Amino acid sequence: MNRVLDYIDSHWQEALADVMRLCRQPSISAQGVGLEETAELLAQMMAEYGVPCQILPSKGYPVVYGELRGDSPTTILFYNHYDVQPPEPVELWSSPPFEPTVSEAKLRGRGVSDNKGNIVARLLAIKAFSQVRGRPPVSVKFLIEGEEEIGSLNLPAFVAQNRQLLAADACIWEGGEVNWKGQPLITLGLKGILYVELEARGAQRDVHSSMATIVPNPAWRLVWALASLKDWEENILIPGFYDEVQAPTEQEIEAVQAMPSEEEELKQGLGLEHFVKGVSGFELKYRHLFQPTCNICGIAAGYTGAGSKTVLPCQAKAKLDFRLVPKQRSEDILNKLRQHLDSHGFSDITIEFTEAEDPARTPLSSPFVAIVCDAAREVYGTEPVIVPTSAGTGPIASFTETLGLPTAHAGVEYPDSRAHAPDENIRLEDFIKGIKYIAAILERCSKLKA
Amino acid sequence: MNRVLDYIDSHWQEALADVMRLCRQPSISAQGVGLEETAELLAQMMAEYGVPCQILPSKGYPVVYGELRGDSPTTILFYNHYDVQPPEPVELWSSPPFEPTVSEAKLRGRGVSDNKGNIVARLLAIKAFSQVRGRPPVSVKFLIEGEEEIGSLNLPAFVAQNRQLLAADACIWEGGEVNWKGQPLITLGLKGILYVELEARGAQRDVHSSMATIVPNPAWRLVWALASLKDWEENILIPGFYDEVQAPTEQEIEAVQAMPSEEEELKQGLGLEHFVKGVSGFELKYRHLFQPTCNICGIAAGYTGAGSKTVLPCQAKAKLDFRLVPKQRSEDILNKLRQHLDSHGFSDITIEFTEAEDPARTPLSSPFVAIVCDAAREVYGTEPVIVPTSAGTGPIASFTETLGLPTAHAGVEYPDSRAHAPDENIRLEDFIKGIKYIAAILERCSKLKA
Repeated sequence: MNRVLDYIDSHWQEALADVMRLCRQPSISAQGVGLEETAELLAQMMAEYGVPCQILPSKGYPVVYGELRGDSPTTILFYNHYDVQPPEPVELWSSPPFEPTVSEAKLRGRGVSDNKGNIVARLLAIKAFSQVRGRPPVSVKFLIEGEEEIGSLNLPAFVAQNRQLLAADACIWEGGEVNWKGQPLITLGLKGILYVELEARGAQRDVHSSMATIVPNPAWRLVWALASLKDWEENILIPGFYDEVQAPTEQEIEAVQAMPSEEEELKQGLGLEHFVKGVSGFELKYRHLFQPTCNICGIAAGYTGAGSKTVLPCQAKAKLDFRLVPKQRSEDILNKLRQHLDSHGFSDITIEFTEAEDPARTPLSSPFVAIVCDAAREVYGTEPVIVPTSAGTGPIASFTETLGLPTAHAGVEYPDSRAHAPDENIRLEDFIKGIKYIAAILERCSKLKA
Repeated sequence: MNRVLDYIDSHWQEALADVMRLCRQPSISAQGVGLEETAELLAQMMAEYGVPCQILPSKGYPVVYGELRGDSPTTILFYNHYDVQPPEPVELWSSPPFEPTVSEAKLRGRGVSDNKGNIVARLLAIKAFSQVRGRPPVSVKFLIEGEEEIGSLNLPAFVAQNRQLLAADACIWEGGEVNWKGQPLITLGLKGILYVELEARGAQRDVHSSMATIVPNPAWRLVWALASLKDWEENILIPGFYDEVQAPTEQEIEAVQAMPSEEEELKQGLGLEHFVKGVSGFELKYRHLFQPTCNICGIAAGYTGAGSKTVLPCQAKAKLDFRLVPKQRSEDILNKLRQHLDSHGFSDITIEFTEAEDPARTPLSSPFVAIVCDAAREVYGTEPVIVPTSAGTGPIASFTETLGLPTAHAGVEYPDSRAHAPDENIRLEDFIKGIKYIAAILERCSKLKA
């Protein structure tokens, strides 16, 4: 194994050059820019790293699929994506977003952390084994999609239709990070999401507000409908909303208790006097990771410019997202939302469905979790932080549930990596350690089927 | 009196030319365009019509005040305004808004109906008396302000400080109209208004919606606060909101019963299946004229563009207007709104006050109403429609209550005059009849103190 790590030490700069090469090619899924070009460049690069691969069609942007046989019967599936967020606002970048730049021991550019840096780190870890030993200790598969930044709408169907192709023993998630103390976070789950737009309509056109005596106001109907969804104490009132919520296990609760608190920093950074319902300490972490949400992302009706306009609007819209926890299902929640509105007299309010992903968590008792923890201790020289679930969202159910794979985050990011924001960056030290971390995980995984 | 009417018949075209002259001078209070110039032009024109006048300072744009002694101890006060609405959208006009144009027996241009046509009609009626008889049958006073289109914010103080100057026996409102059947509407009151902007604030900046578990969302707070103001049955829930609402008199109810219905046309025009609470017939008219409102003019928070953005907004705003009926007071309702929010736990929601006017109605039993009705029958040859109050708003309380004057609408407009809209216009026949109507009212008012 030392020879593998030595190889990484003497070749990471070539991998860094390849991250820059990959990041010079824009691949903005939200804007439809450069996706096919990036898939082709990536396939070529994977071949260079010794991972045979092919570009598979999906209903959306193509999937890049790679596979390399290893020394043991174990197979590890890497989930990644080659699309990136739009670079805007470009004027806030210190250097052009698609001209990756190294300075102060960091690499800056759109996609360096999310998710192209992670792709190349994984490729170098595998190449190190191939160069030193002829082949990696386990078989590896890559599923690299091009629609993660726009909700992975076509991924669940692709995974469901390719169960055999994607069969494996564990999945390594697209990325992962260390905290400010240098401890790697081993995140084991993600929440799901249901994103909808509600719309109420009234008269055919806006009318003078003196008509409010007799002309129905859709802004009022929307406000009443929204207020019926959640009470002032943050309880979501949709019948059956909490039915499928699964209580966290004792191990998950212990892990959350052990997680460092960043409560005061967060409160200060956001200028808040207190959090929702005044929660703090363990209650805060528990609520944040294990509770579902019903959130107003936006609402608009009528005149909202300067000064006063006496108008009765003809239309009102709200965008809502529900963050879901196991075993809630986005489709079920959508049905329950419709039923709730209907039974409260709001059948006139339409629901446009925009985005859906289901939640999933890998149990802490999974042998794969112990393997990743051991690898983390070895490479980072410190105890990792086990995070039973992120509060964020991704297409994790396709892997944890559809394919039945234990799934853990591991990657090259740090708390100031600024994914989705200007000056996205990674530290070179994290890049090097992230490559070694993947190598260490693969090495240990050979025992997964033993 | 016939000689006075003859004089009007042979001189209305000169008055029409003066309306055009006055309308060629823009006077857009919302944009601060041409107000002083218009006040000076108007003062000069009034002198030409034999009404001595002066330009008086106010806290806002100046007031043009004119006064002419008549033959009897009675004094009639005319309330008018020389400011106009902005002409935008200019591209929808058939001819340039500030180049008044006569075609198809109509005069078109910004201000011809609201309110410059009415000013000149009144001046010609007075000049007719002066020319034929030496002076008018009653003394007349003119209060012509320059801020009506921006809420007359300085008028109440001006009137209160000039009670003696403005002392009179009755007030003729700025304008008035005939319906499609040619019946003049004798409107005797206006609703009041309270316009406010509510604002809720959360974190210092928008955050990712996965934080909705723990970061307070001001959009929810605003929705909850709004929903606490009015229930699904349109009952306004602010404690004491209805306390001062005065039941209409029997005469007012009878007048509303006699008003022609335009219910079906309105429903079709707006594409509505039913009105608020399913009201129709007398109930519809009653509700529209005698009930106060609480209306959402606009609401905005977070992301409201295309597609989905998972954001938790840091700010939420709503614009509300309350239309008030006698004896509600805008200041009292503002206080009660604040108390309601505080007592419901919404003391964090700020209220910005934008506009306020108090409601007022003249009783149908006032002798002045009978005089105006008689004058209407004589000039229009048909029964007038008595409208106890409009559902709209204006600074009427300054006249009906502060000065204690019975106040009635009388003017040159018709249902398609398009006040505030492109192609504002009056029909020439209405202009001529409107001049004679004013003359007939003045003639009869000489008996008001008898």
